[in-house]
Amino acid sequence: MQKIVQCVPNFSEGKDLDKIERIVAPLKNKEGVKLVGVEPDETYNRTVVTVIGEPQAVKNAVIEAIGVATQEIDLNHHKGEHKRMGATDVVPFIPIAEMSIEDAVELSKECAAEVAKRFDLPVFLYSHSAQQPNREKLPTIRKGEFEGMGEKIKLPEWKPDYGKAEIHPTAGVVAIGCRPPLIAYNIDCATKDIDAISFIAKSIRLSGGGYKCIQAGPAEYDEFIQVTMNVTDYTQTAVYRAFEAVKMEAKRFNIEVTGSEIIGLVPRKCLEDIAAYYLCLRNTDTLQSYTLEQLAEVVTEHLGLRGFSLDKIIEYHI
Amino acid sequence: MQKIVQCVPNFSEGKDLDKIERIVAPLKNKEGVKLVGVEPDETYNRTVVTVIGEPQAVKNAVIEAIGVATQEIDLNHHKGEHKRMGATDVVPFIPIAEMSIEDAVELSKECAAEVAKRFDLPVFLYSHSAQQPNREKLPTIRKGEFEGMGEKIKLPEWKPDYGKAEIHPTAGVVAIGCRPPLIAYNIDCATKDIDAISFIAKSIRLSGGGYKCIQAGPAEYDEFIQVTMNVTDYTQTAVYRAFEAVKMEAKRFNIEVTGSEIIGLVPRKCLEDIAAYYLCLRNTDTLQSYTLEQLAEVVTEHLGLRGFSLDKIIEYHI
Repeated sequence: MQKIVQCVPNFSEGKDLDKIERIVAPLKNKEGVKLVGVEPDETYNRTVVTVIGEPQAVKNAVIEAIGVATQEIDLNHHKGEHKRMGATDVVPFIPIAEMSIEDAVELSKECAAEVAKRFDLPVFLYSHSAQQPNREKLPTIRKGEFEGMGEKIKLPEWKPDYGKAEIHPTAGVVAIGCRPPLIAYNIDCATKDIDAISFIAKSIRLSGGGYKCIQAGPAEYDEFIQVTMNVTDYTQTAVYRAFEAVKMEAKRFNIEVTGSEIIGLVPRKCLEDIAAYYLCLRNTDTLQSYTLEQLAEVVTEHLGLRGFSLDKIIEYHI
Repeated sequence: MQKIVQCVPNFSEGKDLDKIERIVAPLKNKEGVKLVGVEPDETYNRTVVTVIGEPQAVKNAVIEAIGVATQEIDLNHHKGEHKRMGATDVVPFIPIAEMSIEDAVELSKECAAEVAKRFDLPVFLYSHSAQQPNREKLPTIRKGEFEGMGEKIKLPEWKPDYGKAEIHPTAGVVAIGCRPPLIAYNIDCATKDIDAISFIAKSIRLSGGGYKCIQAGPAEYDEFIQVTMNVTDYTQTAVYRAFEAVKMEAKRFNIEVTGSEIIGLVPRKCLEDIAAYYLCLRNTDTLQSYTLEQLAEVVTEHLGLRGFSLDKIIEYHI
C-alpha cells in the first residue's frame, strides 16, 4: 500500500470565488495530488480545502497554494465571523495510510520551513507538531488574531518556530502541524427526550467518564435527536464502540437507536476497524482483500449508516 | 443521610501482631468510628487498616493510631518487600457519603497539620490534596524510601507541606491526602484465550482508548481468565459500563462473560448507580428506599456477582 496524507488548509477568503479559484489552482492536475473538497463560507469569509495524496506531492502543492494566498489575501481588509490570524490560517496534515503520526509531524515541519523561507511567513507548529505545550491548541496560538499578532509575536514565549518574529504585513502568520484523523459521527435516536440524549452523550464522552477519544453532545432535529460527536482518534477509540456504547446507554431509557451517519471524509482503515468487530475478526488482515464497496456494505449494514457513499472514503479518490 | 468518610492508613509493620494490635487499639470502641479491616502482610511487613465513620471522629482516631505507630515502629530496623518511607506510610481519606472531594481534602489537611504538630512528623499532601503536581502520585513522593528521605527532604522541591524539612529519626515521613473511592472489579470470561482477554482489557481502559476511569489488564486462572480492573472513580465511570463494555468487546471473540466480583469494600452509591441502569431508572432517587439487601440482590443478579455479601458494603458497618 502507498503512503497517503490528507491536508486541510484553511484560507481566509470565503466570498471572492475567482480569488479562491486562483488559490486552489496549484492543487489541481498535479501527479499524486487529488483535490477532494473546496468549501467556501461567506459568513466566515473562509474556505476549507481538502486535498489528499502522496505526502511529498501534497506538501509541495499546498506550499504553492499558500504562496498564492499570501499574495492574494490582505488581512488588513478582512472581515468574517471566524477567528483568523493569517491569509492561510491553519494547515493540518493528517496521516491516512502507511504513515505514522511522526511521519506526518516531519512532513509538517518540512512544509513549515519552506513556507517561512519562500514567503517570509512566520510559522507556529501546532497540535502534534507543537514544540511547546502552549502551542498544542490552535485557539491559544490564534488568540489576539491578525490585529494583535504584531505585538504578540515579539514576546519571547511567542517567537515563531520558523521565520522572523515579525508578522507578514498582509498575510499575518500561519499554524502548520500534524493532527490525527478526526471522524465526525452522529447517531440517530428515535426520541424527543433531549434530557435522555444529553445523559447518553455525557456517558460516552471523556469529560463525562466515557471513552478517551470521544467528544459528544445532543443535537435536536424535527424527527429525532442525535448524539453528535467527534471521534478524535479512531485508531484508539474505534467508531463501533461509540455506536455500541450509545445503544447500551439507550437501553436504560428504552430509546431505539435507528441509525447513524458519518460527516465528511473517512479513511478506509477506520471502516476496516468497524467491519472487523462486526465480522468477529481478530484484526483487519483478511479485510485487505475487500473492495471499498464490500467494506462500505458491511459498515453501512451494522451501523445503519444513512447517506454513505464511496466518495466519502478517502482512498476512493486515489 | 450522615457524612461518612473511609480512611485506609498503611502501617509499616506486618509481622508483630501485638504491636499491630496496639496501633489499631485507638480505632476500636470509639463513638462514630468503625474498624472494618486489619490486613497484616508478613512479606510486605505492612498492615492495611480500613476504618469508616463520622469524618471528625475518624480523623481523630486515626491521628491517635498514627501516634502509636510513630512510637512503636522504628524504620531503621524495618525490612519488607513493599516500598515505604514512614512508620505510618500513607493515609488516604476517601469520601463515601454526603461528602465532596473538597470536604475530604480539607479533612486530610486538618489531619496533616495535627500529625506534624503532635508527633514531629513531616507530612506530604498527596493525591487530590497535593499542592504541587509532582506530589499527586505516591510513588513519586516515596521514591528513595526511608533510607533516602533524609537527604531528599532537604531539597527545596521536597520541602514537606507540614512539619520541618527533617525526617523523624525512627518514623520517617508520611503522605496524607484525599483520593476518590476506587473499586477493584474483576470480570470472569469463560476462555483460555489470553490474547483475546488482553485485547478486551486494552479496549476498555483509558490508555487503550477506552473509558476514562478504568485501568484494566488480563489475569489468568485455572478455570477462566479475568479482565481485572480498577475503576478509579465510579462517580464518573459507573461500574455497569465496565461490565457491559467487556460483554460488547467479548462478542467479537465469541467469549462468554460468566460473572464478576468486587474485591474489598464498595460504597452503597456505587451499587445504586449500577442498579439504576439495570432497573431502567433515570437516577437513583427511588433507590433511596431500597434496603442494602435489595440493592445487593439487584446488582448481584445483573453483574453475576460471585461471593458478594452485605459486609462488603461500607454502609453495612455503620
